[in-house]
Amino acid sequence: MAQIYKRVALIGLGLIAGSMALAMRRAGLAGEITGYARSAATRKVAFDIGLVDRVCDSAAEAVKGADLVVLCVPVGAMAEVAREIGPHLEAGATVSDVGSVKRAVINAVGPHIPDGVHFIPAHPLAGTEKSGPTSGFAELFDGRWCLIVPVEGTDVAATQRLRDLWVGMGAQVDEMEADHHDLVLAVTSHTPHLIAYTMVGVADDLSRVTDTEVVNYSAAGFRDFTRIAASDPTMWRDVFLNNKDATLEILGRFTEELFALQRAIRTGDGDHLFDYFSRTRAIRRGIIEAGQDTDVADFGRVKK
Amino acid sequence: MAQIYKRVALIGLGLIAGSMALAMRRAGLAGEITGYARSAATRKVAFDIGLVDRVCDSAAEAVKGADLVVLCVPVGAMAEVAREIGPHLEAGATVSDVGSVKRAVINAVGPHIPDGVHFIPAHPLAGTEKSGPTSGFAELFDGRWCLIVPVEGTDVAATQRLRDLWVGMGAQVDEMEADHHDLVLAVTSHTPHLIAYTMVGVADDLSRVTDTEVVNYSAAGFRDFTRIAASDPTMWRDVFLNNKDATLEILGRFTEELFALQRAIRTGDGDHLFDYFSRTRAIRRGIIEAGQDTDVADFGRVKK
Repeated sequence: MAQIYKRVALIGLGLIAGSMALAMRRAGLAGEITGYARSAATRKVAFDIGLVDRVCDSAAEAVKGADLVVLCVPVGAMAEVAREIGPHLEAGATVSDVGSVKRAVINAVGPHIPDGVHFIPAHPLAGTEKSGPTSGFAELFDGRWCLIVPVEGTDVAATQRLRDLWVGMGAQVDEMEADHHDLVLAVTSHTPHLIAYTMVGVADDLSRVTDTEVVNYSAAGFRDFTRIAASDPTMWRDVFLNNKDATLEILGRFTEELFALQRAIRTGDGDHLFDYFSRTRAIRRGIIEAGQDTDVADFGRVKK
Repeated sequence: MAQIYKRVALIGLGLIAGSMALAMRRAGLAGEITGYARSAATRKVAFDIGLVDRVCDSAAEAVKGADLVVLCVPVGAMAEVAREIGPHLEAGATVSDVGSVKRAVINAVGPHIPDGVHFIPAHPLAGTEKSGPTSGFAELFDGRWCLIVPVEGTDVAATQRLRDLWVGMGAQVDEMEADHHDLVLAVTSHTPHLIAYTMVGVADDLSRVTDTEVVNYSAAGFRDFTRIAASDPTMWRDVFLNNKDATLEILGRFTEELFALQRAIRTGDGDHLFDYFSRTRAIRRGIIEAGQDTDVADFGRVKK
């Protein structure tokens, strides 16, 4: 594939930035990739493993001469980074991000983007429970969706160029309005993560069931929750603080339904339980058909 | 490995029974394996794929001459099956089961077991989201735990023999008291399943987010819930109806913690969220170290 950007600057060097660097290299999408991370330890690891072409000592240095800058830091750190790089951005450059929340990022970053620079928020819906500069891999985005969330007046050509980059990295691209994005993600990601964290915390807290019992007997369902609940705490704190309304709305719906099922258990209403448990299979089939998960039993943990 | 039972009868021919048949064959643990399922269609499939040596037309026929009978039916069907086979059990035989709840099974099955027959409840902590006679595989129990729940006065030699069978099928074996089993499983399995079913049901119900959006954008966490929520509805209805007290207790703890996190989100208490999200990583490490899950990112869905 042809080069799309001359120089790409990745601010933040965790799972997503690392995977982007590897995916861009795989397809030759960037002439040069620079990177910056706040932590000196992260910068050193990124340098040692050659994650990007050039590790810079400041975000300002990393963005110099870049025609694409991607903010890959936790949502809560976006404003500060944007303020720092704002004065150093090249005219005509594009600034994007990979944050899990979009309205808050637009509010935080937008004011720091100078005239003549395109700001095009985005969110690749891909990840693992791993974090840090060694956790990335080139295939992370293959077949996954990247949602682009254009702000008012976004340049059409600049948006198309960013779409091309994501397609080149293996993703499918769609566009969505910011508030709707935040609601959809509250359903497909944020609330499930909060619930998983809660369940794992409850298990950890119980005095009548030991941690060894929880660990040894986790294969019956619980372990999938622990994988989700092993995700980066800083990232997820920022998600919930910055997508408060949508998360609370979906949580409200969740507890309402949970109470109805709890009542069915208490009153012995087997029909209610059976009906509820039956209709959830269709969504699973849809996800398999859409190529968003494998149909291999137990995720292929056990080879048939 | 040497043969442990002369003839094993599997009542119910779903995921667990099928995997047991294949695992017993792999190690030569049973001289003959007979099987029965209530559904004629299931019996036909089991016959066609040669799942067991002999598919019988009644449970009574299947257990004749068997020195081990394993009840692999939903918990709610155990009493009826036990009543039917009771008069046909051989003296000295062992009756076991694989139900996810143990106190209710003991109460349902125990009274139908004649003198001279050993009743030794058990529960292998392994499974997938698949069900039916074609879903089994020989490796399902490898490295997983099987909990044996002896009732009062259980014969030591008969228990050891059943332990040997499970070890021969690849499992690790532990013994546990029935009520404690039901509490532990409420934590590691039953409540996580109920929560996953609830979350998937909520997503399915929302009118402001389409099913296509839920399906396409599920890779951000939600799809793991859909896998769990694709489990067999009859089995899970019976689990909740028969482990009511422990499930309601753990659900109570869960909602208490969830409300505390919800409040932290509402009030913007980032420290509470960060602390909670940080401590759940240790349990995940324990599960990996205990060999109960893979450390491959994203379950190895994406090959590195």
